[in-house]
Amino acid sequence: MHTDERTSRARLLVTMGDVAGIGPEIIARAWPQLVESASAWPVVVGDVGWLEWAVRLVGSTARVQPITRLAEATPTPEQIPCLAASTAPLHAVVPGQISPAAGQAAFDFLVAAIDLTLAGQADAIVTAPLHKEALRAAGVPWPGHTEILAHRCGRPEHAMLLYAERPGQTGLAVIHVTLHLALREVFAHLSEAAVLEKIRLLDTLLPRLIGRPPRLAVAALNPHASDGGLFGDEEARLIAPAVAAAQRAGIHVSGPWPADTLFLRAVGGEFDGVVAMYHDQGHIAMKLHCGRAAVNITAGLPIVRTSVAHGTAFDIAGRGVADASSLVTAARVAARLAQSR
Amino acid sequence: MHTDERTSRARLLVTMGDVAGIGPEIIARAWPQLVESASAWPVVVGDVGWLEWAVRLVGSTARVQPITRLAEATPTPEQIPCLAASTAPLHAVVPGQISPAAGQAAFDFLVAAIDLTLAGQADAIVTAPLHKEALRAAGVPWPGHTEILAHRCGRPEHAMLLYAERPGQTGLAVIHVTLHLALREVFAHLSEAAVLEKIRLLDTLLPRLIGRPPRLAVAALNPHASDGGLFGDEEARLIAPAVAAAQRAGIHVSGPWPADTLFLRAVGGEFDGVVAMYHDQGHIAMKLHCGRAAVNITAGLPIVRTSVAHGTAFDIAGRGVADASSLVTAARVAARLAQSR
Repeated sequence: MHTDERTSRARLLVTMGDVAGIGPEIIARAWPQLVESASAWPVVVGDVGWLEWAVRLVGSTARVQPITRLAEATPTPEQIPCLAASTAPLHAVVPGQISPAAGQAAFDFLVAAIDLTLAGQADAIVTAPLHKEALRAAGVPWPGHTEILAHRCGRPEHAMLLYAERPGQTGLAVIHVTLHLALREVFAHLSEAAVLEKIRLLDTLLPRLIGRPPRLAVAALNPHASDGGLFGDEEARLIAPAVAAAQRAGIHVSGPWPADTLFLRAVGGEFDGVVAMYHDQGHIAMKLHCGRAAVNITAGLPIVRTSVAHGTAFDIAGRGVADASSLVTAARVAARLAQSR
Repeated sequence: MHTDERTSRARLLVTMGDVAGIGPEIIARAWPQLVESASAWPVVVGDVGWLEWAVRLVGSTARVQPITRLAEATPTPEQIPCLAASTAPLHAVVPGQISPAAGQAAFDFLVAAIDLTLAGQADAIVTAPLHKEALRAAGVPWPGHTEILAHRCGRPEHAMLLYAERPGQTGLAVIHVTLHLALREVFAHLSEAAVLEKIRLLDTLLPRLIGRPPRLAVAALNPHASDGGLFGDEEARLIAPAVAAAQRAGIHVSGPWPADTLFLRAVGGEFDGVVAMYHDQGHIAMKLHCGRAAVNITAGLPIVRTSVAHGTAFDIAGRGVADASSLVTAARVAARLAQSR
């Protein structure tokens, strides 16, 4: 690969996630599509042995190139550079089973990728899934990728965003005001400031994906958007004031709208971005909209990070049947974001 | 209409709902399809003047037949029998505006239909939408149709169910453990008994719609089904025990499943019925699945009641543009339920 070709591409670090999940095999399966893209220059951050296992599992003829520095990497359709990034003992890990070692390694892979990207050695991170229980078993004090990224990058203002393409039009993004919390904890984390911050993050990021100022909408928390205060007061007390403040700042946003019909309208093309109040509100809608093809983006970081929108799929891990299309899309979106900075 | 033809059909009472909403016009628009169905014998319960107005609004040539007893009704494609069922002063009501009189009348129409059906003079009720704020403005102490029906029928064990057809397969139903509550009130209303009751209601009703024992699934409350207890404990404490109890009773049910992927699986055909924990959880999924074509069914009543799954649509009421397809489907499903008792 020529140097000029390399430098015009987005340098993507693809983290392997939990090796007991489908991460290794979807990387192995997606590899030709990742490296053949005109815009991406990918390198895996993970474990060489598990990647070699995954390459065999999916019947690929590619070889793994173990590297210790990114400068050594030579990604081609037949060669997968892999930066070994954990000393956790992974030999005893079993596909589909929770393992503290695999949780620790997933954390190590991610931290290595964050530090390299913050140091300017890479342009974006694309993450394969990790397992939250394994992470906890390893003693990691954050529940998932998004929180680790925000902490390591020193950014308290961040949010998890799902992005999906819509046939015949620009994509649709959903950002979450709260994320990995018990539903009963959501109320303590909602505020006018938190809703406004997420509107701003979405308004800042979305133009880089759709190429124009976005039309945004904010979901209600309560059924029927509280029906004028019959079922809760968060709409009048927190959400409507945040929407009004964003409008005063010149942002094209409306709401709060009843969540059930809002997502139907958004999928139909009326809005480019939706602010969801809690994890499942946004996730139920986006999974039904596009199956498992959505891409997870962390908004508000100083670096670009995208992810598959699915989990470790322990039920099918190690069988070589996992669908890699979400990873391919995540890499494409990461490259687009990296090149629009 | 011959007597034998009439008695073989399901006698449907179609309540007009809030006359300031789209109820009158969707009844007028749907009428030919309602009465031409081989299985239904429909009569409107509402206001004669507003029905005549709606008939003109949609450009129908049908005439309204004012009746005071159901025995007088002669429904044909050109004649709409209407049982006047409220003395609320509706002359000053304006389409699209909240009115205590319209709220009172919507309540009166519903109560009349319930009493006639409980008395055996009709087989099922199909309701056009009412407006919850108008209902409250009229001093009615229940938030909506479902709660009024349950109270009037003396059935504390009831639930709101959304039903939608799936192309090429049997339909999909979602039942709600909690309904018209602020989201923060949901937790106080969830219990093992409440979840089990809804599983049983769904298992009892669904065979009448799909013609065989159903495959049921129960949604989790928390994101990732709490990820093994990381985000809440309702899965382990309430939902899993209810699922286990239902399984011991011979019901084909599984869960709790993470809600975002559960609905994707259900729409894909893996399940026939889903138990949702709160209003928006089920409604976001079903509206995205089938747009506004879902049918609302009240499970657990001694009578059959279905409804459109949309609201009064005050934003378009009185313009004659409202889509009546949900009402047509609601009537067809009501007839099927009435004939399967």
